[in-house]
Amino acid sequence: MDKLRKHIEAIIAISDEEFEFVKPFFTYKRVKKHQYLTQEGDTVTFEYLILSGVFRMFYLDNDGKEYIVQFAGENWWMADYQAYFKDKKATLNIVCMEDAEVLCLTLHGRETLSVESHKMEHFFRVKLTNGYVALQRRIISLLSSSPQQRYEEFGRLYPHLMQRIPKKYIAEYLGVSRETLSRLYSNSKV
Amino acid sequence: MDKLRKHIEAIIAISDEEFEFVKPFFTYKRVKKHQYLTQEGDTVTFEYLILSGVFRMFYLDNDGKEYIVQFAGENWWMADYQAYFKDKKATLNIVCMEDAEVLCLTLHGRETLSVESHKMEHFFRVKLTNGYVALQRRIISLLSSSPQQRYEEFGRLYPHLMQRIPKKYIAEYLGVSRETLSRLYSNSKV
Repeated sequence: MDKLRKHIEAIIAISDEEFEFVKPFFTYKRVKKHQYLTQEGDTVTFEYLILSGVFRMFYLDNDGKEYIVQFAGENWWMADYQAYFKDKKATLNIVCMEDAEVLCLTLHGRETLSVESHKMEHFFRVKLTNGYVALQRRIISLLSSSPQQRYEEFGRLYPHLMQRIPKKYIAEYLGVSRETLSRLYSNSKV
Repeated sequence: MDKLRKHIEAIIAISDEEFEFVKPFFTYKRVKKHQYLTQEGDTVTFEYLILSGVFRMFYLDNDGKEYIVQFAGENWWMADYQAYFKDKKATLNIVCMEDAEVLCLTLHGRETLSVESHKMEHFFRVKLTNGYVALQRRIISLLSSSPQQRYEEFGRLYPHLMQRIPKKYIAEYLGVSRETLSRLYSNSKV
């Protein structure tokens, strides 16, 4: 729970007493590589704060083709938010790519924390703001960028993920073939 | 300002006194068709709550090709949020497609309202949550859907916009040619 406090205090200072109030809303969970946190069709009870490990979130079409919406590593929050916030069945899958530890928070917990604590509502608003900006940037990138630009942007924004994620999935995330990605890799090393 | 109060009260009830505190943070502006609220390279001082009219937000690449990130009508909030929140120059353009009225809010105003009023922080968090879910959905749609599916989803989510926006721009938003869009239109009327 030390990591949780540090994570919150990166945004807003809280007292010991305030943190004692926050703690019980989170439950700790270990996740093994290849294990799913969410599968399409599930009821989405939790969102997850990642303490260690890496996940990928993807959409699977009717032909079994996988489309990666997002990767997430330490200190990222992750959920099929449409399902989580709107009480719908999951349309996305979240799978563990490296043994991981996460903290789980229910929507009821999130809303109670926000109502009871102005500081926690502030914390969640700031996190959402950053998430919103990242998604707006991803949309622009998907609409307009060349594979080369998308590759460079990914490397610039997420250098630590770049080294830990198999190339196959990076290619999928960028929407390019394995061959194109290999070419981009070797170009960038020249 | 009646519209503003109604818009806030769709999320959370506020007293007359609370509304009197909120009001001065917003400034009213009329916008003519074809007028820009933001152009690439601008400093982004405001986000906008649209009271009437329709806008489109787009990215322009080096070849002058336009990529539509979003349309927005009544009761939507709109800004180049990366620039607004992160104090960067705009990379997006926002242009008016129908004579409009908007309310303008600075980042300083937004943050002050949130710090001073737990209710307003709640209001902004809920709006961001909805916005975040909409962007996550748009990413999935861009990654995986066929033109037919994207067209149907757009019609289902935004029926009022569908009728007011020239087909040319809807085709651009969906990432299809004018010819494909015409075919989708006629198919859906059979």
